[in-house]
Order: sequence, then C-alpha cells, then structure tokens
Amino acid sequence: MEQRVSLITLGVADLTRARRFYEALGWTTRAEPDDDVVFFQAGGLVVALWGRRELADDSTMGDDGGWGGVTLAHNVASPAEVDAIIDQAAGAGATIGRAGSASFWGGYSGVFVDPDGHPWEIAHNPRWTLGEDGSVRLPD
Amino acid sequence: MEQRVSLITLGVADLTRARRFYEALGWTTRAEPDDDVVFFQAGGLVVALWGRRELADDSTMGDDGGWGGVTLAHNVASPAEVDAIIDQAAGAGATIGRAGSASFWGGYSGVFVDPDGHPWEIAHNPRWTLGEDGSVRLPD
Repeated sequence: MEQRVSLITLGVADLTRARRFYEALGWTTRAEPDDDVVFFQAGGLVVALWGRRELADDSTMGDDGGWGGVTLAHNVASPAEVDAIIDQAAGAGATIGRAGSASFWGGYSGVFVDPDGHPWEIAHNPRWTLGEDGSVRLPD
Repeated sequence: MEQRVSLITLGVADLTRARRFYEALGWTTRAEPDDDVVFFQAGGLVVALWGRRELADDSTMGDDGGWGGVTLAHNVASPAEVDAIIDQAAGAGATIGRAGSASFWGGYSGVFVDPDGHPWEIAHNPRWTLGEDGSVRLPD
C-alpha cells in the first residue's frame, strides 16, 4: 500500500449547510446543487462531503454520533494567517474550539469545529516546509 | 482558507501497535522508537498517529470512543490492486469491513478497519485520474 491518501470523506447531517460552510471559507466545487456528494479538489487529494448515515453504512461503521479520533489540520505560513482563518471560520458559522495561541510543540495554532463536529487545527509549524502548492514536508 | 489539507491525525490507543500496523502495510517513518507522535510523509501531506486522548484534548473534542464520521480512501489503478491491499491489510491485522466488490458508483472498492477503528476504503475509480505521484484528480 503506497504511503498516500486519496480522499477524505466527512459525514454530514445537512449537505447544503455543510457545502455552504466550506464555500464560505473560500472553497469551490463543481458539484451540482442536487448532487448527493460534494467533492472538493484539495491539492493532490479530494475532500468529500456526504451524508453521515450513508458514509457509516458504506464504511461498515456503527455510529453513535460523536467525534471519532480523527482531526484534520491546515498549515499556514504565519501566526497571523492562523488568526485570520480562525476568524473567517467563526464568521462562516464554525465553533471555535480554541483561538490561536502558541502551541506546546513550538508553533502556533487554533481549532475550529465545522457545523458537523469535524475539528480543523489551523497551524503554523516553523519546522515543516510549506510549498507554494500548499504541500507540506516533514524535516529531513 | 486555501482548499487543501496538510495533516490528518489518527488517534490511537497503542502507538506502538498502530505504528507497526502501518509499517506492515509498507509505510515508513523517521520517528524514533520513543517519539510520542509518529509522522508519515504521505505525498504532499502528513499522516500522524497520536494518542487518542491527547488528540481529543488538543482538538477540544469530547470522545465516546466510536467512529466519528470520517473515512479515508486510498485509490489505486485496478480492481486487482484493491484486492491485493485488502489482503495485505488483513495480514497486517486489520478487520475487513467488506471485501473488494463492484461499487454502486461504478468502480470497485473494499474497506479495511485499522486496529484503532479507523476505516480505509481502498478504491478503483475509473473516472478519477490517478497521477504517477499518487495524486488524484476529479474529472474536468
């Protein structure tokens, strides 16, 4: 199995609401208004929004409705960009888990939680290389 | 907020077990044996394994221990590759949610569940472009 991820699917309760939230963050999709899955091209992978019940069935998972031990992160080039995205997410309807602050690992980060309870850490990590294409590289 | 993901962190109960599982799938890390986070460079993003309790706290999430509405997928170039990875995952200790089979969306996929309950769909989608670098592209 190659060391890569092709697709991250987020289960949602209300696809229209979820789509609007990510669009309010500036994301764009070619999905039609009545598509039952919304795909976003996110660099070399795809982020999808799909009904959580359908995703649970398709993934052969039981579902009690909570968080499941997966957190996504979005790295940026400065603490100021962390703060700006946390503000943008709040304006789009996210819950702010924690505002931007210095992190125990030597960077700066904050957390927003999307309308379906999926957390995103927005982080500035000065030890990771952030490419112009948005890719991140661990130190050599 | 740019349309990209930098890091996917999977919360785990036993970091050594989780690391061994992904290494048994062929993944490699530069993490030291006693590091408390294990990072895998996965194309232009990073996949991390970290204690689920620590991840919950850091993500400002409550945790009832179940699945949380997030499924990862790994796309490959043929149905035979789907079957091979599902077999490999079973050999590495995964639970097989469903064996490879034709999917309702016109491709072929199976699901394995890692030792911490995180599902991975292994998929062949003939309508998506799989790059030589492992990136996936939605149709134009």
